[in-house]
Amino acid sequence: MTVKKYNRAVQLCFLWLVVSTVLLQSSDGHSWKKHPLPKPCRNLVLYFHDVIYNGLNADNATSTLVGAPQGANLTLLSGKDNHFGDLAVFDDPITLDNNFHSPPVGRAQGFYFYDMKNTFSSWLGFTFVLNSTDYKGTITFSGADPILTKYRDISVVGGTGDFLMARGIATISTDAYEGDVYFRLCVNITLYECY
Amino acid sequence: MTVKKYNRAVQLCFLWLVVSTVLLQSSDGHSWKKHPLPKPCRNLVLYFHDVIYNGLNADNATSTLVGAPQGANLTLLSGKDNHFGDLAVFDDPITLDNNFHSPPVGRAQGFYFYDMKNTFSSWLGFTFVLNSTDYKGTITFSGADPILTKYRDISVVGGTGDFLMARGIATISTDAYEGDVYFRLCVNITLYECY
Amino acid sequence: MTVKKYNRAVQLCFLWLVVSTVLLQSSDGHSWKKHPLPKPCRNLVLYFHDVIYNGLNADNATSTLVGAPQGANLTLLSGKDNHFGDLAVFDDPITLDNNFHSPPVGRAQGFYFYDMKNTFSSWLGFTFVLNSTDYKGTITFSGADPILTKYRDISVVGGTGDFLMARGIATISTDAYEGDVYFRLCVNITLYECY
Repeated sequence: MTVKKYNRAVQLCFLWLVVSTVLLQSSDGHSWKKHPLPKPCRNLVLYFHDVIYNGLNADNATSTLVGAPQGANLTLLSGKDNHFGDLAVFDDPITLDNNFHSPPVGRAQGFYFYDMKNTFSSWLGFTFVLNSTDYKGTITFSGADPILTKYRDISVVGGTGDFLMARGIATISTDAYEGDVYFRLCVNITLYECY
Repeated sequence: MTVKKYNRAVQLCFLWLVVSTVLLQSSDGHSWKKHPLPKPCRNLVLYFHDVIYNGLNADNATSTLVGAPQGANLTLLSGKDNHFGDLAVFDDPITLDNNFHSPPVGRAQGFYFYDMKNTFSSWLGFTFVLNSTDYKGTITFSGADPILTKYRDISVVGGTGDFLMARGIATISTDAYEGDVYFRLCVNITLYECY
Repeated sequence: MTVKKYNRAVQLCFLWLVVSTVLLQSSDGHSWKKHPLPKPCRNLVLYFHDVIYNGLNADNATSTLVGAPQGANLTLLSGKDNHFGDLAVFDDPITLDNNFHSPPVGRAQGFYFYDMKNTFSSWLGFTFVLNSTDYKGTITFSGADPILTKYRDISVVGGTGDFLMARGIATISTDAYEGDVYFRLCVNITLYECY
C-alpha cells in the first residue's frame, strides 16, 4: 500500500515536471509559435474581364480612369512611368471559363492603380459579388499585384453570405492582355476558414 | 480474467476503427469542411451622416469628390451613368440614433466610389473611429455596397483597441437619402471574434 | 460501501451543476464572450520613406498625388483644410533602420488620403512587399491614421507567403517629417496568428 502510494506520487511529480516545462516553453515570448496550416475548405477558379475606357469605347468599357498624376489625362493610360499613379474604377463580368461571352456568374467591383515607376505593377482593392445557383455572397480582396509575375498572391480580407468571414489567398495570373484596352485575370481562390 | 482482456481488446479495436474512419473522412481534401458559425460576441448599431460638397456647402460638407471620369467634374456628382467613377473621401459624424444633431460618438473616415453604370451601386473602404465612454478603438470595413438593396452586407476586415482583430459583417441600410447632398446609413455590426 | 457510493453520487451531481451552469452562461446570447488574447507569434519593426512629388523632384519622388478636391491641384498638397481630399499613390522603400540610404528590404505600396478638414489626419491602404533573406511575402494594412497622435494603431487585414493570412495590428509613429516633401514612418507590427 505504502509503496503504491509512493509510486503514484513519483508519477504525479514527473507529470508535473513535463507539463510545467511545456508551459514555460510556450510562454517564452521569444520562441514565436506557428499554427499548423489548416486544410483548405474551399477552392474557386474564376475569370474576370476588364475593358478600360479609352475615349472610343464608352459603350463597352467596364472600367474607367478616375485619377491620374499631374500632366496625365483620364482618357488614356499614362504614357510614361509605366502608368504610375493611374487609378481606375471597375465593374467587370466574372465568368467560369476564359470566354468573355460566357454567361457571367457575378461582378468584380473595385479599383486598381498602377504603383511603380520602373515596371508594370498595380495595387488592387475589389469584391467578387457572386450571384449564381452555386454561390451567393461576396469575397473581398486587397493587395499588391506585380503584373509581370506569372503567379502572384493577394489576400482575401473578408466575405459575406456563402463566404461569411472568408480567409485565405487568391493566386492571380494574367490570362490575356490586349494593349491597354482589355485584360483578363484568372483568380484561383483558396479559403482556409469557412462557415 | 482472459475473457475480460479479450473484451477490452475488442473494445479498443472498435474504438480505433471509429476514430480512424472519422480522421480519414476529415482528411479527404475533396469533402470541404465547414466550421460551425460561432455565436456573435458583440453587436453595435450606429448611424453615420454624409454631407457631400456640391459647390455651395463648403462649411457643412463632410465629404468631397476627389476623382471622377473624363468629362465629369469634382463639384457635382456626375449626371450620367449613375455617377459611375465618382470617387469621394469622407469624414462623417457617427451617432447612436438617426438624428444628425445627436452628440457624435466617433467619426466614419474613408472613401467610396460609384461602381456601376446601369444602376446606383458603390464600393466602400472606411474606418469607424470610436472614442466614447463605451468604446475606444477602430473597426475597418470594406466591400461592395449595392445601394438600392434594402439590406446589404459588407465585411469587417480589421479592428484595433476595444475591437482588436475584429471579424464579422456589417449590415447596411440607407436610413435617409436627400438628393445628392445628404445620406444617412444605419450600420448594424455583428462581430464573431472578440478579444 | 453504500455510504461511499452515496458520496460519489453527491459529488457527481454537484459537478454536473457547476458544469451546466457554466455552459448555460456561455450559451446565453446576451453575455458577450471574449476570447483570451493569444500571445503574439511575430513582431517586426520596419521603416518606410515617402518622398512626395512637388513639381520639382520627379526623379526622386516615390509618391504622387492622383486625386484632389475641386479647386486644388495635383502638383502640391492642398494649402487649405489640412490637405482634406488629397489622394496619393506610393511605392516607398522599406528599411530596417531609420536611414533612407540603408539597403531596402522591400517596398511599401498603396495609397493614402487626407481625411479631415480641421486637423491633419489620413487613411491608409497599403501592402508591405518583403523580399529579403529573412522574409518573403506580403502584409496588407488598412485603417485610419490620425497623424498628429504619437502612436496610432492600424489593422493588419491580410498576408501572403511567410505572412499567410496574417492577423494583428501595426503601431505607427512618425519618425521624421520634413515639410510636405518627405516623411518616414516607423511601423511596429504585431501578429497574433501565424502559419
